[in-house]
Amino acid sequence: MPPTPPIAGPVWPLATARLAVRPLGLDQVGLTTGFWARWQRQNRDATVPHALGWLERDGSVDNLRRVAAGESGPHQGMWFSDSDVHKVLEALSWDLGREPSADLSAAVAELTGVLRGAQGADGYLNSYVQAGHEVRWDNLAMSHELYCIGHLIQAGVAHRRGTGRDDLLTVARRAADCVVAEFGGQRRKDTDGHPVIEMALVELYRETGVPAYLDLARQLIDVRGRRVLDPKGHFDSVYYQDATPVREQTTVVGHAVRALYLLSGVVDVYTETGEAALLDSAVRQWESLVATKTYLNGAVGSRFDGESFGDEYELPPDLVYGETCATIAGMMLSWRLLLATGQSRFADHFERALFNLFAGSTSIRRTAFFYNNPAQRRVARPAAPTGTRPRRADAPGTRPEWFECACCPPNIMRTIASLGGYVATESDAGVQVQQYIPATIRTACGALDLATGYPLDGAVALTVAETVARPWTLALRVPDWCARAGATVNGTPAGTQAEGYLEIGRQWSAGDRVVLTLPMPARLTVPHPAVDAVRGSVAVERGPLVYCFESPDQPDDVDLNHVELIVTEPLTEEHRPDLLGDGTVVVCAQGVVRDDSAWGATGWATLGAEPVTAGHRVELTAIPYHLWANRGPSVMRIFIPTVR
Amino acid sequence: MPPTPPIAGPVWPLATARLAVRPLGLDQVGLTTGFWARWQRQNRDATVPHALGWLERDGSVDNLRRVAAGESGPHQGMWFSDSDVHKVLEALSWDLGREPSADLSAAVAELTGVLRGAQGADGYLNSYVQAGHEVRWDNLAMSHELYCIGHLIQAGVAHRRGTGRDDLLTVARRAADCVVAEFGGQRRKDTDGHPVIEMALVELYRETGVPAYLDLARQLIDVRGRRVLDPKGHFDSVYYQDATPVREQTTVVGHAVRALYLLSGVVDVYTETGEAALLDSAVRQWESLVATKTYLNGAVGSRFDGESFGDEYELPPDLVYGETCATIAGMMLSWRLLLATGQSRFADHFERALFNLFAGSTSIRRTAFFYNNPAQRRVARPAAPTGTRPRRADAPGTRPEWFECACCPPNIMRTIASLGGYVATESDAGVQVQQYIPATIRTACGALDLATGYPLDGAVALTVAETVARPWTLALRVPDWCARAGATVNGTPAGTQAEGYLEIGRQWSAGDRVVLTLPMPARLTVPHPAVDAVRGSVAVERGPLVYCFESPDQPDDVDLNHVELIVTEPLTEEHRPDLLGDGTVVVCAQGVVRDDSAWGATGWATLGAEPVTAGHRVELTAIPYHLWANRGPSVMRIFIPTVR
Repeated sequence: MPPTPPIAGPVWPLATARLAVRPLGLDQVGLTTGFWARWQRQNRDATVPHALGWLERDGSVDNLRRVAAGESGPHQGMWFSDSDVHKVLEALSWDLGREPSADLSAAVAELTGVLRGAQGADGYLNSYVQAGHEVRWDNLAMSHELYCIGHLIQAGVAHRRGTGRDDLLTVARRAADCVVAEFGGQRRKDTDGHPVIEMALVELYRETGVPAYLDLARQLIDVRGRRVLDPKGHFDSVYYQDATPVREQTTVVGHAVRALYLLSGVVDVYTETGEAALLDSAVRQWESLVATKTYLNGAVGSRFDGESFGDEYELPPDLVYGETCATIAGMMLSWRLLLATGQSRFADHFERALFNLFAGSTSIRRTAFFYNNPAQRRVARPAAPTGTRPRRADAPGTRPEWFECACCPPNIMRTIASLGGYVATESDAGVQVQQYIPATIRTACGALDLATGYPLDGAVALTVAETVARPWTLALRVPDWCARAGATVNGTPAGTQAEGYLEIGRQWSAGDRVVLTLPMPARLTVPHPAVDAVRGSVAVERGPLVYCFESPDQPDDVDLNHVELIVTEPLTEEHRPDLLGDGTVVVCAQGVVRDDSAWGATGWATLGAEPVTAGHRVELTAIPYHLWANRGPSVMRIFIPTVR
Repeated sequence: MPPTPPIAGPVWPLATARLAVRPLGLDQVGLTTGFWARWQRQNRDATVPHALGWLERDGSVDNLRRVAAGESGPHQGMWFSDSDVHKVLEALSWDLGREPSADLSAAVAELTGVLRGAQGADGYLNSYVQAGHEVRWDNLAMSHELYCIGHLIQAGVAHRRGTGRDDLLTVARRAADCVVAEFGGQRRKDTDGHPVIEMALVELYRETGVPAYLDLARQLIDVRGRRVLDPKGHFDSVYYQDATPVREQTTVVGHAVRALYLLSGVVDVYTETGEAALLDSAVRQWESLVATKTYLNGAVGSRFDGESFGDEYELPPDLVYGETCATIAGMMLSWRLLLATGQSRFADHFERALFNLFAGSTSIRRTAFFYNNPAQRRVARPAAPTGTRPRRADAPGTRPEWFECACCPPNIMRTIASLGGYVATESDAGVQVQQYIPATIRTACGALDLATGYPLDGAVALTVAETVARPWTLALRVPDWCARAGATVNGTPAGTQAEGYLEIGRQWSAGDRVVLTLPMPARLTVPHPAVDAVRGSVAVERGPLVYCFESPDQPDDVDLNHVELIVTEPLTEEHRPDLLGDGTVVVCAQGVVRDDSAWGATGWATLGAEPVTAGHRVELTAIPYHLWANRGPSVMRIFIPTVR
């Protein structure tokens, strides 16, 4: 049992009575070993200095320094580059909450000083506007002023929670108070172009107890749907999340990150106010998202055009946009819905996103990133040039180091730094393990040690280290992909499975050992019949991992554009301890390489008169999708057609 | 036999000995009745005043008037809006060549006066640069200065050919001479960001005989491939057609319109210079285009991102870009390759593009246009608002009236006005009929009257009106979709079929009547097995027409996102004289409406454990693709999955 109040994590509601399950603090869950603990160390050791270096190289900090010094000069990078600084600060802050560091503290202090110096007397802070490139609050559709301040608030809250210090929070509060003074209390009923401040304001309310922040968050949600934003601009009100009032919206539309940041704030406002219509809208839109607008690898937002959701079942892997930030925003939404409802489906979606697209967004060295994430690559593209930063979505053959629009890398960093906060929850009934990540978990009921080789291995061992002297229930999420989960306590079968959890209620004793078994034979997955783009195809999955076929793993004569998989033959699995850094389990399948040369000149033929294609047998090898593009430019596909 | 030199059409080579077949002049081919002749009348009566009105409303003409008056003011619309004026002038000029008109002549005279007034003393003409918004010749990657002047040259050449007058040509030549003075003779070996001037300069050379124009066209082609354009910008050298030297390029890449305008100029330079490497490159790239990067409806350029070609077989209908101008540019390339080689495959591609995507780009009233052309629409979108012009690719439910980037509508207009030039060709051996469009055709061998209900009817009657007193061969293209073509002369079977043409060589007499029969039963078409996006699906085609299933033609309970086609049951055809203006032939197919509701929460399932979907029989009705979106917002698909 924690002796002191826990270190609050990224979502820390005040109205906990309204929650089905409650989050655990960053000091209550510590990742110990394995993939994610290693990534947290890489994040601190490699990604943080890499990111701080880029913020200096790309001028993002200098933009603020110039304002602080009262100097003029052109703004460097995107007009919302301040948000990159704020998000890196948030990442550092969560990482300090995870484990103190003098270096990180010094970096935060320096950047906080820059922000403090740049901040106006009334609390306003936006280096682009302050340098005179735009008029304050004059172009809410595109200015990203509230967006940047939203990220500043998230950073301030994270720093307060992670360190107990007020210096960055003070900068953030002054900026928030400036926003409240301008917009709060219905003073300006304007709509902003890029949501994020809604959830930031709710968290600031949680951290400070000041209702004006919560009220403004609700106001900024309430005003949406009047189609007032920039009707003559390139983007429309659907893009800006301004086409339909939030409470009437039935599915996610428009810019994917905007939609999912907004919905995260909607759930936050529900949590603190109890307005059921907000939760209903968020659940309804989430259901549509997962059933009709999510790729197998967890990508959301099909379209390059407007970085937007497609229509239902518009999920072509070759033209997917799939922004990393959109998948992270979906994880933020799923986590909030999990807290609100306790339903395992939200943790299932979080798992799919985390272990696949999120993990694959970053190189195994953790210093290169995909902004948009390919789900199929027909032709190997040149590697991302060293030391350069594309604007965003140029989609090179490997991950670039940074981006001119650098929203994704710090979004990844802050998620990794705070990942412990997403592993488990508690309730009056007991403890719920939501993600199978090796960790120590301390709750009001007791302390657990979770050990597992998951996701490569389906055995999860939980040892009770401490316990209260009354019965409580340990609920273990049974992933939606798992057909036959089982558990033992001290070697004896135990637990009942219901609604996505295997529950074991008893009087626990220190030393009790629970073993959860999640059988994860490699399996073939078929798409919904309305997903036209991958009809007649299958994907390999194993446990929570989506696999892909990448050219370096295939025989030399295999062109992945002309292969089919023989579904009637068994898949085989092989642990390759040497592959891609830490080793992985590959899955081998029997396939056919088609010789399509008889098709000749055109891309179509009359039914019944198709050219005859020959083929020869081949063994195809699949690796986890998240590991692709770490061996230079390559061809890759997740779905593969079946021999018919 | 024409008593005077013919009125030259859009491509009029000097080195005719190098041509396999020679073009006919605009006065040699007159469209008489049917779809295309009616569209030519609509083009003059409805589209021309519509376009002239929009050029005034959107400020494109005023931009030039202000320069002429020496006034300042912000540029209205896109920075290359001059090109819209030039292209409309070209369209009017070809239409004057087709048939004189006092109104059109007056409009041309007025706009020519505006251009003359705006033109600088040294011939330079670009209202954006002249108004001081950019430095002359300073930003060739994006300035579109040569692009605009290229379209001006095309207009000047068209006006000279269509009317015999020199006034617009004089403006164009002065601009061309300004370009030659700056860039010609290797004075500046720079690369331009948007090809079109290459083919324009070759045509100007053809019209004037001045070799400097041809030399500069070749120079502008030769300099490409050095990756010098704007390496720090949002677009890369592939986009700008600057990644690989033209003679080494193996497939079309990057911005589709840029690629195909460039290749059209490449063939033009080949035609006049005889450099085989240029023709080889163009043929090689065309073959790759048609075999791997062309949609069934003739769309080319898959990607919204960079308006660019995708990789081979990257042809998803739901995310296609398919710019109208790209398909037109492909038609321009195919026509040039047809003249150079005499091979029917180039006319086949022209036909597919013309009768499907091109025809479908425009509303049946001919005053609304698609910029990007959907090939599948899962959800009906709101209609394009009346009286507004989206930037370009917002893809509303129906065709907008105009665009801020208004390249497509005048491109359509100039093609329609000069369409007679693409119907037939001649050679020393005789006459080749390339497209089956009702027309009178006059050649050096004789005159023909072509009558047909094509493309709804496969009977084509050709009557010899005049003939020379020596044998010649009438070659009738046998479309690639037609399995069993036959012909009679005066009722007696005649002709031999070889290499895509049915040839009838004989001493003709006036009054001889040839009947070509092109059986066109409705057929089902399957995609190349590497086109992932439409695997397991078929499309309905009939003759040259690609069909689509649009929601207004289906029973009320049919959601086209959940239907399958029963390929074992026959297709039926029905002429609907009342449908969509002029009537059409619809094709009915037996299908199944799936009830996918059992799929529930996610978009995937484990193979072998898929939810069971029920279904009920339904008759589905397909209309020609080019007629879709004329009855308000709708759902539409070309490819439809098959019952398995």
